[in-house]
Amino acid sequence: MVTLSTPALEAARLLADQDLPGLIVLDDNGVPSTILPGTQVLRMAVPAYCQDDPALARVVDEKHADLFLKALDDKSVRQLLPEQPKELPVVDGDATALEVAAVMARMRSPVVAVLAGKRLIGAITLDSLLDRMLAT
Amino acid sequence: MVTLSTPALEAARLLADQDLPGLIVLDDNGVPSTILPGTQVLRMAVPAYCQDDPALARVVDEKHADLFLKALDDKSVRQLLPEQPKELPVVDGDATALEVAAVMARMRSPVVAVLAGKRLIGAITLDSLLDRMLAT
Repeated sequence: MVTLSTPALEAARLLADQDLPGLIVLDDNGVPSTILPGTQVLRMAVPAYCQDDPALARVVDEKHADLFLKALDDKSVRQLLPEQPKELPVVDGDATALEVAAVMARMRSPVVAVLAGKRLIGAITLDSLLDRMLAT
Repeated sequence: MVTLSTPALEAARLLADQDLPGLIVLDDNGVPSTILPGTQVLRMAVPAYCQDDPALARVVDEKHADLFLKALDDKSVRQLLPEQPKELPVVDGDATALEVAAVMARMRSPVVAVLAGKRLIGAITLDSLLDRMLAT
């Protein structure tokens, strides 16, 4: 979990170091503000023109292309978030495994936040869901 | 990597056991046919009515909601694939890190196949990309 004021590079590092599939971003009240799949954390570092057409990444010389994460260096998560998504991948504590799976599949998010009201009480990753399902 | 004729349950198990972010599906000639992010592998097991509205998963009783992966039991990957996506998350061997990142971000795929012509020569995961980027 990170907050809106977490440095963006720190968020990317957390994702990498802990092999997380995504990040839950909390606002100043501890309420989930956004839930970012890992690919969308990466998106924060990719210049907009490359997102629209990845082939344009080739016009960037190799040295800079390897250092593009530096763009995150002095930005916070808040500064780099895309426009707010309308719907968040969240469930309440009573959700069944099928409901969690349906939310993950529909929203293409490998991490789902578990809420009690607006309060975050946990998180479920795709791996932990599959592990539990396949163990039974 | 799996093929179109791999049993779907085996594909889900591979994803879970090896903590993979997604699967590359090969056709009978060994050419990547589809690349499925983990959330879309899960989708194969979720009934269509739950995908459209995850809250409908609540009408399924808890016992069955925990066993929904059984639906994959006697199906192959081919039988459960959604309509073919137009564009696959692939790069060639010369791609820079920025290009790989742009493809992942744009296509929301935490795994990208590396091709030489049509032949699969490797795969890059979001974690491996971030690890390499952040180590420099």
